[in-house]
Formats: sequence, structure tokens, C-alpha cells
Amino acid sequence: MASMATLFVKTPSPSPSFPKTFNTHFSPALKLSIPLASKPRTRQRLRISNALIEPDGGKLVELFVEESKKGEKKREAASLPRIKLSRIDLQWVHVISEGWSSPLRGFMRESEFLQTLHFNSLRLDDGSVVNMSVPIVLAIDDAQKRLIGESTRVALVDSDNNLIAILKDIEIYKHHKEERIARTWGTTAPGLPYVDQAITNAGNWLIGGDLEVIEPIKYHDGLDRFRLSPAELREEFTRRNADAVFAFQLRNPVHNGHALLMTDTRRRLLEMGYKNPILLLHPLGGYTKADDVPLSWRMKQHEKVLEDGVLDPETTVVSIFPSPMHYAGPTEVQWHAKARINAGANFYIVGRDPAGMGHPIEKRDLYDADHGKKVLSMAPGLERLNILPFKVAAYDKSQGKMAFFDPSRSQDFLFISGTKMRTLARNKENPPEGFMCPNGWKVLVDYYDSLVPADNGKVPEAVPV
Amino acid sequence: MASMATLFVKTPSPSPSFPKTFNTHFSPALKLSIPLASKPRTRQRLRISNALIEPDGGKLVELFVEESKKGEKKREAASLPRIKLSRIDLQWVHVISEGWSSPLRGFMRESEFLQTLHFNSLRLDDGSVVNMSVPIVLAIDDAQKRLIGESTRVALVDSDNNLIAILKDIEIYKHHKEERIARTWGTTAPGLPYVDQAITNAGNWLIGGDLEVIEPIKYHDGLDRFRLSPAELREEFTRRNADAVFAFQLRNPVHNGHALLMTDTRRRLLEMGYKNPILLLHPLGGYTKADDVPLSWRMKQHEKVLEDGVLDPETTVVSIFPSPMHYAGPTEVQWHAKARINAGANFYIVGRDPAGMGHPIEKRDLYDADHGKKVLSMAPGLERLNILPFKVAAYDKSQGKMAFFDPSRSQDFLFISGTKMRTLARNKENPPEGFMCPNGWKVLVDYYDSLVPADNGKVPEAVPV
Repeated sequence: MASMATLFVKTPSPSPSFPKTFNTHFSPALKLSIPLASKPRTRQRLRISNALIEPDGGKLVELFVEESKKGEKKREAASLPRIKLSRIDLQWVHVISEGWSSPLRGFMRESEFLQTLHFNSLRLDDGSVVNMSVPIVLAIDDAQKRLIGESTRVALVDSDNNLIAILKDIEIYKHHKEERIARTWGTTAPGLPYVDQAITNAGNWLIGGDLEVIEPIKYHDGLDRFRLSPAELREEFTRRNADAVFAFQLRNPVHNGHALLMTDTRRRLLEMGYKNPILLLHPLGGYTKADDVPLSWRMKQHEKVLEDGVLDPETTVVSIFPSPMHYAGPTEVQWHAKARINAGANFYIVGRDPAGMGHPIEKRDLYDADHGKKVLSMAPGLERLNILPFKVAAYDKSQGKMAFFDPSRSQDFLFISGTKMRTLARNKENPPEGFMCPNGWKVLVDYYDSLVPADNGKVPEAVPV
Repeated sequence: MASMATLFVKTPSPSPSFPKTFNTHFSPALKLSIPLASKPRTRQRLRISNALIEPDGGKLVELFVEESKKGEKKREAASLPRIKLSRIDLQWVHVISEGWSSPLRGFMRESEFLQTLHFNSLRLDDGSVVNMSVPIVLAIDDAQKRLIGESTRVALVDSDNNLIAILKDIEIYKHHKEERIARTWGTTAPGLPYVDQAITNAGNWLIGGDLEVIEPIKYHDGLDRFRLSPAELREEFTRRNADAVFAFQLRNPVHNGHALLMTDTRRRLLEMGYKNPILLLHPLGGYTKADDVPLSWRMKQHEKVLEDGVLDPETTVVSIFPSPMHYAGPTEVQWHAKARINAGANFYIVGRDPAGMGHPIEKRDLYDADHGKKVLSMAPGLERLNILPFKVAAYDKSQGKMAFFDPSRSQDFLFISGTKMRTLARNKENPPEGFMCPNGWKVLVDYYDSLVPADNGKVPEAVPV
């Protein structure tokens, strides 16, 4: 495995003419819990700084209907066959419509689906290759297929029958579920969360096409203002005069080991000559499995981490990544990285066993802990991205804080797994001092406290979305 | 799907200065059954014609120890830990050593294994990409791993302990079998022939490294003289002044539908301006499943097809492709095509459901019949190869011969499946006249006749190698 030092050199030195300016304050990132007056987000053409990495395909895709055409589109949709979207489908519409999956312009047609399954990448018309490792597809059943008949477009509606989008130039093809699962997860074992949630009972057909989305997707959960689109993130990074953006994907509470890693990454980027590296702290906000801490609690926890000064709000942007979680390890980590290129990140921090989980039926991890970073470093279409492998942080008993693991004095270190962390918080026990900021830890304890114990006395898992 | 016509235009027109010369007779191809005086094959540096497609990686890999160094290598091997090769392992040594898998220089290390599983391709040091879709790996068990200890090289021996090769600069890594199977086959259902034969009971480790092969691999089955290496095939195509080489992979008897397709392909190539297109009729010679017709019988059948004039020996080279068969459909067809690039083919004929089979436990085909040609047409590293999708041939009752299916008069056509063909031959029934040349059919009948019926009266399956 290439060391962090050798991987850093993949990026040319930043332009010395890029001025270091005062970092303006990004209020949503700092004051997460303070509701701001709801301000309608406008989607205008953005000035994209030359300093930011180019989106995949050269141009950030945004698929919203122009204001002046909304009436016409709504009238058109009224006469089209309707497909009702599940909550996860809606999250994918969100992802596609804002350009996280640029240059994808809609749900995958078969050619894109096959390239994703077999090559984890798409070849564009100009012969260039972009990464695309998880299928972004929409399933329909036999009855829906019959309903669509010969129509070349369909209306997509939410669970309340509100119009979300039109899918045009559609292509309907077989949903080979077993093959999709095997090639995406490297297993077909029963119990994969995303499979149980979104594939097993889904229809036997997939429908691809180009999206025309009526309105930006909103969830009305008090967190919409943190859901910055790639264009908005690029605007923010540009406004801050970022000359490097390093992304940290997470779906767990932030402990001081994570924080150490992020601050150390910033230190290294400064050492390399970057003047203003900005951290994108980017919790995943779509579907997660039942025993993950829900997004709303994680956001509260992240807020405390910033309030307590563990991370510096001046150089950190906290935003929500709208994608659902596959738990597909080395396959999914490519998606996580690729989407952040589109949001302007040119450095990506990757840890041990990214997007991994336990094997659903065997007593082992589903993926080799090192495969994620290895696959990521070799993935087609991600050559432009600087991969920063995670150094292992653990609790250093001799210093009473989280520190990078030093194998020469391994007896000084304590590894606190996610399972251990959850068990402590559930039992209202405290972790060793210095593991997590106290206010952040309190959020976790409060979360588990909020769960009503089941009749059998066991602490229940949270319910899935 | 692009039509054949559009796919043809991928190749630049042949040089008009390339002279049409008299095609010399290639005796092994014509007189398959006549034993030739055994002539030791010499492996010399070949003149590669500019008209032939370049091997993957720019240079054809050959991994044989120079004559002058054999003694030294044998002495060295005597002191090394020994790994005994299975018959399939030996077939892979054959494949790698002759450069079918160029630029691979040995069994895959983990980086190559991961790229194969996730991307079906390998990135070379110069940034270019070659196709590589099936893992070419060597499994060892815990005891063998212990035996190897800290050694950086091992000796590979056959079942009789004859030295085959040295594997050097070795790397040992985990054999994640479930993941390998899922990502290669798109299923983990029990009963996949190659999995049962070569993976399920194989060791839990894989050993990669560079091969030094002592002697070209021989099987002493009377067919070695038909096993031309890529270098020998290139020499033959050059000698014949081929300006196009079109490969036809097969593991079944040739019927007149196949023959029609091959002669029609040649006609089209001539129409395009090629002066001397040569057919590489290239039966797979490694491991095949129990109910496939064994290689020796297939070679007898192919001989009759040439003797009966169904295919023209003047423009046909029959040779054996030494690879084992995976039955991995769209994944494997890429391997079949890529290996033929290395042998000099710049056109590849692909049929319905290439390398496919029935699902081992469900009543359906394992793969979508169209996915093979679609995946092949999009596969990274195969852009240089002209993919020729198979037109469907069927028995035309109105003409009493095999013809391209005409949907406007579908009632005139009879589809004779492989299963139907085998059933007829087993029962010593004749297919419709014109389905296969009579002497070729007789070989098939003789083959099934040679099988001893089982006690239950059923015709048994042939035994696997």
C-alpha cells in the first residue's frame, strides 16, 4: 500500500498565486441546532473556481425544471403513467438531480447498469471513463410495466402522490436481482440491509431514463438546510477560497480519533504548501440500517463536536450527503469518493473497512478490512482524486487521549470498537476520558435513553427509515 | 446493440498495398487425425507482421526458461518448497506461460486479483488499461503456506512430482472464496462446475508471483500438435499474409449454422476490402463440465467439417485454446476475446449467451442471453477488438438447410438447441438433413455410443478431466 506521503504527491502543488484570505464563517456548520429562517434555495448558475476539481464528465449535472416550465411539466405529467417512489427511490432522485452522480442524467438504462456491475465505471461518448460502482436504478413490477405500455415517459410521484419528476426516453429491462446482488456485494447471503429493504421485494423490471425534477427534494425534518447540493458546496468552497477540499464520509458519531485524523490531514496539507484546506465533514443522510445511530442524533452529536472545539468551524463545512447506504464495502467506497469529487473534494480520507459490516450469516467481517482502500486506490475514473488512507487511531492510555497507534508500545493502546462504544452509551457508562468530547457523548447516551426497551428487557434497535 | 455493419467500421481499412498471395496449406488444420512425425516446437523470436493486432501490453509475454539456464533452474528448484499443481492449475500455467494472458507474467498477486474482480481490467504502469475478467490464481492451504514460510519462491510440480515451473517474488493473500465466486459468476448458487472443481475445496490462500516455466506444457494425448501458442499462431497468420483474423471460440461440435456464420463473416470482411481474412477456429481445450463433448471427440468432429468442405481449409486455422472453462457468461466472454487478441485476432465473433449455462438450481438460464455481447462491446481494454455479434441461424425447412433466421417467415424455421442435438445423437437419431455434415454427425453418434450406460439404463454424462 502506498504511504500517505507518496499518495499526496499525486496532486500538483497549489498555485502560489492563490491568496490566503480570511475564512468567513459558515453558519449552518457551526450552529447546527439553531433553526435559521427558512430561506428558499435558489439554483442559479454558479461560478466554479478553477481551484476546485472538475466534476465527472466536465460539467455538474442539475436536473431541475426551470421555473417558467413547471406549469407545463405538471400538466404533461398529469396525463402520464404514474410510478410511486419508495423513500429510498426518492433519495436516489435527490442524488441524481443534484449531480452527485454526474454525468448520470437519470436512473440507469441497461448499458449503464451493466457497466456498473461489471466494470464499476462508465465510458463516456468521448472515450473517457468515470467511476460508477453502485447501480442507481428504479424497479417496477409487472403491473406497472403493463400500465406504462408504449409510453416513452412516466411521472414519478411520492407516497402522497405529489409529483416529483418526469422520467423520459425510458428503457425497461429485466431486474436480474441475484446477479445484481452478487456483483455489488460479493455475496448473496440473506440479511444484507439494503437488499432486504430495497431489492428482494422490488419489481422484476428496471426502468431507466432521463429525469426532469420539478422541485429540489426536501424532507421537512429540520435538517434540509444542511443538505447542500454539490453546486452549493462548490459555491461555499469557492467563497472560502479553498485551495484543497478533503472529504470525510461518515455514518457514525465522531470521536476524537476521527478528529485527530482530520486535523492531522489538514496539518499535512498545509505542510505541502496548500494555504487553505477545507474539511468537508459529510455524514451520510439516506437510508441506514436499523442499528446505526439515526441522522438527527448524529447531527446533534456533530454539532457538539464543533461547539466543543474538537474541530475548527472556520475550516470545516458540515453538510449532509443524501445517498442511501448500501453497506457494500469496496464497491460502495468508490461511490462515496466519486460523489465527493462532484461536490468539489480533491482529497478523500479512507479508513479501515469503509462501508463494511459484519457478514450477515457468518461470524466474520463481510469484507477484508484493507480491500476498501486498495480498491479505491486502483479504481477507474478516480485517478484525479487523492486517496488518503486512514492511519489507525486508538486510545493511548499513557496520554489519556486518542492518538495514532504506535506498534512499538502497543500495550499502551486501547481499541474501542463501534460495538463497544454503542454498548457503553446504551448502558450510560462513560468511555475513557479523551475518547469523545463530553457533550458529544451525552448526545449518544440521550439517544439510547430515548429508545423504549422492548418487553424482553433488551434495548431495541432503532427502526429503519 | 450496434449492428454488425457499424461495428465493422471500428477497424481502419486494410492497407491496399498488402498483397494477396496464395494461401499455403496448413496441414494440422486439415488432417487432424493423421499423426505427424513429432517435431519439437522451437520457441524463437518471431517476426510479427504489422498487419496483426498488437498483444495486450505491447509485447507478447513468453515465460520459458532459456535452454542454457534449465540445469541451473532445476537445481535451484530442488531446494525450494514444492506446490503440487492440479490439472486445472497446470492448464493455467500453460495459458500464462504462452502469453494468452499477456501482460500477466504469473499467477495474480492481490492487486491484480482485486482489479480483476472489481473492474475486469488491469491498469498498467503507463496508465493504459488491458482487459482481464477472470481471476487466474493459484490456491494453497494452511499447511502449504506454513511450508513456504519465509521463502520468496516456490517450485511448482505436477501430480507426478515433475518440475513444471518456479514461482518467484511470491505474495500470499487470503482466498475470499465467496466474494470471488459472487463477483465472477454473479451467483453463489451451489453446482457451478468450475467452482465445484477448482474453488470449493481449494485452499484458503492464494499465491501470486512471476512464473519461470521449465518446458512448454504438453498433455501427450495426441493433440499437442494442435495446441499452437499465440506466437505460433501469429507466425502462421503472418505466413499466410492474413490482413484480418477472425476468431471463433467454441466448446461444442460445429453445425452448419456455425459454418454459415463463419463463411458469411469472411464474405463481409472481403466486401469491406480485406484481401485475406483468416478464420481461427479455436475450440477450448482445458477443463469443461461433464456433459460437454470431450475435446478429443470435438477435434474429430471439427476434422470432418473441414474434410467435408463445410469450412475452407485454405482460409481456416484450427487450433486448441488451452484455457479451462469457467461458464461465467458475460465475465468469461471477455477473457475468451482478450486471449484471442494476444493470438493475433482483431475480429471476434460472439453468439447468444456466450460461456453461459443453465442456472445450477433454478429453471432458467444463468445469464441474460444478450448480456454477453453487450458487456463485451463495452469492456475496458477491448476497444481495439472488432466485436461481431452472431446473427441467429436456424434450420430453414423451406430450403432444407441452416440459414439466418428471417422473422418475417418464422414458421419456416426450426431451432435445434444443444440439448436437442445431444439427445438426438444419444438416441442415434438423425437431425434434419443439412443441420450438420453427415460425417461430423457420425462422430457425435459414435461418442455417445462409446459411453457405457449406467445401471439405471440412463445414458451417463462423460467424466470430467
